[in-house]
Amino acid sequence: MPYSMAASHMAGKSATDKIFGAAAAANAAKAKLGRENVVDATIGVLLDNSEKLVVLPTVEKVYKSLPMAEIAPYAGIAGQPDFLEMVQVAAFGDNKPEAYTKAVSTSGGSGAIHHTIWNYSELGDTILTHDWYWDPYSVLSDAMLRKLDTFSLFDAANKFNIESFASKVNELLARQTSLVVILNTPAHNPVGYSLSGDEWDQVLEVLKKVKADKKITLLVDVAYLDYAGEKNATRAFMKKFGGLPENILVIVAYSMSKGYTVYGMRTGAMIGISSNQDVAAEFANINQYMSRATWSNINRGAQQLLTAIYKDAAAQAELEKERAAYYKMMAERAELFTTEAREAKLAMVPYIAGFFLSIPAKNPDAVCTRLRDDNIFAVPLAKGVRVAVCALPAGKVKGVPTKIAQALAEVDK
Amino acid sequence: MPYSMAASHMAGKSATDKIFGAAAAANAAKAKLGRENVVDATIGVLLDNSEKLVVLPTVEKVYKSLPMAEIAPYAGIAGQPDFLEMVQVAAFGDNKPEAYTKAVSTSGGSGAIHHTIWNYSELGDTILTHDWYWDPYSVLSDAMLRKLDTFSLFDAANKFNIESFASKVNELLARQTSLVVILNTPAHNPVGYSLSGDEWDQVLEVLKKVKADKKITLLVDVAYLDYAGEKNATRAFMKKFGGLPENILVIVAYSMSKGYTVYGMRTGAMIGISSNQDVAAEFANINQYMSRATWSNINRGAQQLLTAIYKDAAAQAELEKERAAYYKMMAERAELFTTEAREAKLAMVPYIAGFFLSIPAKNPDAVCTRLRDDNIFAVPLAKGVRVAVCALPAGKVKGVPTKIAQALAEVDK
Repeated sequence: MPYSMAASHMAGKSATDKIFGAAAAANAAKAKLGRENVVDATIGVLLDNSEKLVVLPTVEKVYKSLPMAEIAPYAGIAGQPDFLEMVQVAAFGDNKPEAYTKAVSTSGGSGAIHHTIWNYSELGDTILTHDWYWDPYSVLSDAMLRKLDTFSLFDAANKFNIESFASKVNELLARQTSLVVILNTPAHNPVGYSLSGDEWDQVLEVLKKVKADKKITLLVDVAYLDYAGEKNATRAFMKKFGGLPENILVIVAYSMSKGYTVYGMRTGAMIGISSNQDVAAEFANINQYMSRATWSNINRGAQQLLTAIYKDAAAQAELEKERAAYYKMMAERAELFTTEAREAKLAMVPYIAGFFLSIPAKNPDAVCTRLRDDNIFAVPLAKGVRVAVCALPAGKVKGVPTKIAQALAEVDK
Repeated sequence: MPYSMAASHMAGKSATDKIFGAAAAANAAKAKLGRENVVDATIGVLLDNSEKLVVLPTVEKVYKSLPMAEIAPYAGIAGQPDFLEMVQVAAFGDNKPEAYTKAVSTSGGSGAIHHTIWNYSELGDTILTHDWYWDPYSVLSDAMLRKLDTFSLFDAANKFNIESFASKVNELLARQTSLVVILNTPAHNPVGYSLSGDEWDQVLEVLKKVKADKKITLLVDVAYLDYAGEKNATRAFMKKFGGLPENILVIVAYSMSKGYTVYGMRTGAMIGISSNQDVAAEFANINQYMSRATWSNINRGAQQLLTAIYKDAAAQAELEKERAAYYKMMAERAELFTTEAREAKLAMVPYIAGFFLSIPAKNPDAVCTRLRDDNIFAVPLAKGVRVAVCALPAGKVKGVPTKIAQALAEVDK
């Protein structure tokens, strides 16, 4: 055993990042064979069809015009007041729920999940999410001394599995008094699913049936909201968060990373939604407290960027037009992929929108390793293979589904 | 009792920020009386002698020249490799210790403290710092379910109180197996003290005497390092961190906030220093893991900013010249203050350098409230009154020490 200084709960921990490993292999192949001969579907950022990083033009224009006096000083601990107002406009659109709402700035969506787990679950509690999930949910739970359990995202008809959801919620609440549930929708990472309005109604019905002495915090990770379809249609579910019982707190984890293509600025917000004014006030208090105890405050320039855009109707309209164009670009790539997948009899997890689509596999590592022989690079997940349509140019899709089908046939045992 | 959704350990928590309260009162007075008639010594950022926010010209020039492709993408979870190298150049100067060192990017100094407490102390442990301390140390400890205890920073001769330090270290280690110690030096916030080389030797002697089965993590908060005096003289103590026993891990909390006047960019690094290679590797692993579980990654543009400056000898020299000028500006303000304080028989905590100086008081709140009658605004701390010489123009110093002496005589009971 190597000598260790770590606290007992951290000893031996380290992040093995499969995304990083896959991306490194793809880069090595590009260096050897030339970029044009490699299919790199590992990258989780938006690349255009010539594989150039997309920075939305309105974002660049507004950010580059900010004076240093709006970038350099500290932001408020909870966030800049204007930002905390405008981020709700950005998140809710026309679908602000009838409820008390409060926003607190966070380090992207990750920061919102961090605060939610720490502030709304007990040490040792189990957090619940779907079985296809963004891997860091387990790191966040584990590092903060919680467990992560999953329900089946899909039923046999490839629709949201409400029975599995209900059964897990009730099972966990039989042994703990509060429960944090994480749902990633719309444009789910890693599969691209979006819950329908009816499915949302079913989810909320399950939660409303929970006894009043149990507490539910429902975190909705909307990281891909702005590439999920028409703006207000994709936000319609948020209206349903009004008028819920006071033992259900909904938290929308809003990230600027993808919607503004400023992944590296580390800015977002958690927006608490409650029918009880005390719960909303407590939300502002305890999350501000935790911010002071974690990162102190959040990137001021990025907050000013969002504020400047959402206070300017023309800039907002321009930004939304730019997002719509890239949504369409990804939809076209996914359509090419899906059509060929059907011909190649390659089963896919239901994709509606978003940066990623997934292929179920029994042995995702073996499949991804086999694909490297064809100069195709994708990310192995627990339940399948993730293909980043955000980064895969339309011109490189052809042949990929067929080759994945072959790799599955050869090595997926 | 209002209805609560919070986890049991967070219920009822909220940050009451005295700095914010004092700053708000100062701003109200400025709005009423005009800026020129108000002495605002509450602000913790560098203002020039016309009370304008200072942004170091080299920082502005380099940051504004960065393309969006260096700002927009994600940074690595632990930090950009170049940054992790150059931040050590920036932190150590010519005084890099003979030891294994590893850097991990953090959300300023606060983020470094966050990871240190979580990763190197047990739940329920007591963290040790000096009795004059930056208030958030207690919030960080409390929010992460640790306690904070203090030793006396000064002895009767107003020198570092090595006896109080030794006694508290040994007392705490009698009941816990590991101990995180936080020392804020050089240019201590809030008093402006810097440990001398001899005092550092004494501190390390105390820690070296600790039994080998106990573990010490010494966090040195160097937030004000770049305004503490001559560059290498103020860093000389870091050389002493080489060759320590393996049960002493030193962590330098390096912040870009003040040294680059980019408070709102939330970027810094924790630099681990150990004689044991395993401890250094573990440092990189567990802090990267915790970063993934907290903020995911850190502001990429700010990392590029530091890297660009420290890879360019001319830019680095220019930046250091700018810092030196502002160090001199603060030294002049403090000299004016100290001279008048001596005449007014106003006792001060020993000030050497930095953004703040402090006046001991029995009832700091009453003193600060009384000072508002004279349109002087300062921040009440647990043990005294904090005066921000970083923000107080030289032209406004005159009369302030005398009025503080009067306020003390009147209300400090």
